[in-house]
Amino acid sequence: MNAFILPVGDELLIGQVTDTNSTWIARQLNLLGINVRHAFSVGDTHEEIVKAIGYGLSQAEILIMTGGLGPTKDDITKKAIADFLGVELFFHEETWRKIRQIYERLGKTAGESSRIQCFLPQGAKILNNDVGTAPGMWFNYGQKVIISLPGVPSEMKYIMEMEALPLLQEHFPGEPIAHRTVLTAGAGETELAALLEDFENNLPESIKLAYLPAYGQVRLRLSGKGGDEKSLNAILDSKASEMEKIVSRFVFGRGEKSLESAIGEVLREHKMTIATAESCTGGLISHKLTSIPGSSDYFTGSIIAYAYEAKIKHLKVKPDTLEQFGAVSEECVREMISGILAAMDADYGISISGIAGPGGGTENKPVGTIWIAVGSKYKTVTRKIGFNRNRAINIEYASNAALAMMWNLLKEELRPK
Amino acid sequence: MNAFILPVGDELLIGQVTDTNSTWIARQLNLLGINVRHAFSVGDTHEEIVKAIGYGLSQAEILIMTGGLGPTKDDITKKAIADFLGVELFFHEETWRKIRQIYERLGKTAGESSRIQCFLPQGAKILNNDVGTAPGMWFNYGQKVIISLPGVPSEMKYIMEMEALPLLQEHFPGEPIAHRTVLTAGAGETELAALLEDFENNLPESIKLAYLPAYGQVRLRLSGKGGDEKSLNAILDSKASEMEKIVSRFVFGRGEKSLESAIGEVLREHKMTIATAESCTGGLISHKLTSIPGSSDYFTGSIIAYAYEAKIKHLKVKPDTLEQFGAVSEECVREMISGILAAMDADYGISISGIAGPGGGTENKPVGTIWIAVGSKYKTVTRKIGFNRNRAINIEYASNAALAMMWNLLKEELRPK
Repeated sequence: MNAFILPVGDELLIGQVTDTNSTWIARQLNLLGINVRHAFSVGDTHEEIVKAIGYGLSQAEILIMTGGLGPTKDDITKKAIADFLGVELFFHEETWRKIRQIYERLGKTAGESSRIQCFLPQGAKILNNDVGTAPGMWFNYGQKVIISLPGVPSEMKYIMEMEALPLLQEHFPGEPIAHRTVLTAGAGETELAALLEDFENNLPESIKLAYLPAYGQVRLRLSGKGGDEKSLNAILDSKASEMEKIVSRFVFGRGEKSLESAIGEVLREHKMTIATAESCTGGLISHKLTSIPGSSDYFTGSIIAYAYEAKIKHLKVKPDTLEQFGAVSEECVREMISGILAAMDADYGISISGIAGPGGGTENKPVGTIWIAVGSKYKTVTRKIGFNRNRAINIEYASNAALAMMWNLLKEELRPK
Repeated sequence: MNAFILPVGDELLIGQVTDTNSTWIARQLNLLGINVRHAFSVGDTHEEIVKAIGYGLSQAEILIMTGGLGPTKDDITKKAIADFLGVELFFHEETWRKIRQIYERLGKTAGESSRIQCFLPQGAKILNNDVGTAPGMWFNYGQKVIISLPGVPSEMKYIMEMEALPLLQEHFPGEPIAHRTVLTAGAGETELAALLEDFENNLPESIKLAYLPAYGQVRLRLSGKGGDEKSLNAILDSKASEMEKIVSRFVFGRGEKSLESAIGEVLREHKMTIATAESCTGGLISHKLTSIPGSSDYFTGSIIAYAYEAKIKHLKVKPDTLEQFGAVSEECVREMISGILAAMDADYGISISGIAGPGGGTENKPVGTIWIAVGSKYKTVTRKIGFNRNRAINIEYASNAALAMMWNLLKEELRPK
């Protein structure tokens, strides 16, 4: 079974926006055993879109379009689909009712331009969009299928997950494909690959191992294909466990879980709390921890202390320490740990201070030098990392390194499964 | 002049890697007045690549391929180009010499697999790659051109900038294209479209307006094409100014600037400082502000106060206020402003408290209810937002709304241009 992804929008072709939708869609389809043959961006021109729809359907059974469904003039996907299918647009009352409701909740009135969103090609099966105004649509075209989705990633994902993927699975039951993902933090791809060399060489033909690195975390994904579903799952389970054992000291979970949610689960289970004291990461660790629903159960707060005064006043870092060793020092992050545990009345703390760049580096402490500490009332562990890519990556990488250290401390002290 | 971008690689079609190369290439070509008609991903299959080359060249004068030039088995772009052109591969001594040099510098010896990289299709004009082992290539195909580049973004960019773009400019002196982007925050796409309806209807044929929304911010992009460059730029400048006036109360800048960097510029210019007091956004506003290089000039710190105790202790919110009105209340965010200005010794403050969900909602304060305040020692402005998508979007949206409010307060008090 093949799919063709067709993102619509000039913004893609002039390079203003990167098409992350196609990546996400391809991954989901792949999990259903649907091959993506092409992703193919097309601009906001009626004839081009109509032509691309035809080309896509000549190449694949499933055509997934994103974008061009909004209320403005450059949103012309619906007209293109209608013309391709040779049907008219009709006014969909239910969509109009929903849009008015959304506006009412915001204390506003839906205007004329919102009505444009309610004209849909005849034959459309509506795919509910509960997170935005533009509905998704499903069209049967002979034995083939056209799916049209909004370009806003959150809305596209919602409709895919809740509506389109289940329908596709029903419509095109495929050859079984299955995956197991083991999540690791604190080791690089090369280090893991060395540990897993024998394991990988001994994998059966039908199973592949992929390394998916992202800023200090690596997902190890085993993918298997073919045969009957039951034995495919059995062998994947056994191989995933085997692999997990080999790299166990870096593993923090399975599937799509994040390190911050793994940390949250352990803290909740043990009724423990956490807080962060951040300098160079500027709140990113705190943001990651609180991005998990229900994190208020275990997250008490953070102090982001950029200025020296803030470090002294709120984290009780000694002025002497700052003078003698500087803010980017093991001594400073150690004091930040005691400071944050007291300030936020927390059981566990993360502290971090470094030079994210591009400015601020010195000969002894070049850009990228970052000190991290994680601690409880029993123990504080520190580590210096020192690699410099650019500010955004340094911040992201340091945040993940800090969370990996926190995970290891929790493993040691609380022994999560 | 049209270009067709053809990224090669299974990793794109299974959704493992997002194709950022095409975005970057499209932006560069666009600046040269070359239209990108399609970006079209193809997997690592010989016949598919050959077919895609033919399709691309039927649609555009310039075909730019990325990926598939490495030393491993799945890197088959060169063979596909050779077969498409009907030529043989030859061993390129100069590339082999370069690869051996690179290995020697690393204290290693280049192996057999590296030799594979040195077989190039006949007729290739070499595009030097000084940052990696795989050279770029340029092929003339009648009046058309095929450019093949490595998939590693840094290598691709190097070769494009140093070699391919100058050659393209020489080869195809093009029709001018230009853009003006006006950045807005605080208004939705529909609201802006209503304000800009007349303006948009009166735009000349050669100029298009596109709305690019993202969580409470909308970029308004005017694109113009054709004619002579000088008059094209003149009309775009005039139309952009006209548009800016119509939606002026939402405008925070031009081009690719972020709201947080616009805020930073004004603060730096006036030697003012900022701090945030965050509850539901958990540090995201702080992270955004500190993602800007040099933000330590004006950002002093933040207090992320999830727990009631943290709000009382560090932000001096009165226990009475929390009891009587709750943490998600105008009264609370007002007190958080005075609290954070004092705690972090800042001139400007942002405070935020709300229910990001999915849990924690009540009948009076459903999930999505978020109070925001922005203030200085002269003035505090508050606003309640109340829309619920999901936790991540609520947090992102609220952070942007808070930054938009901050921008408006700065406009009022500091009058940035």
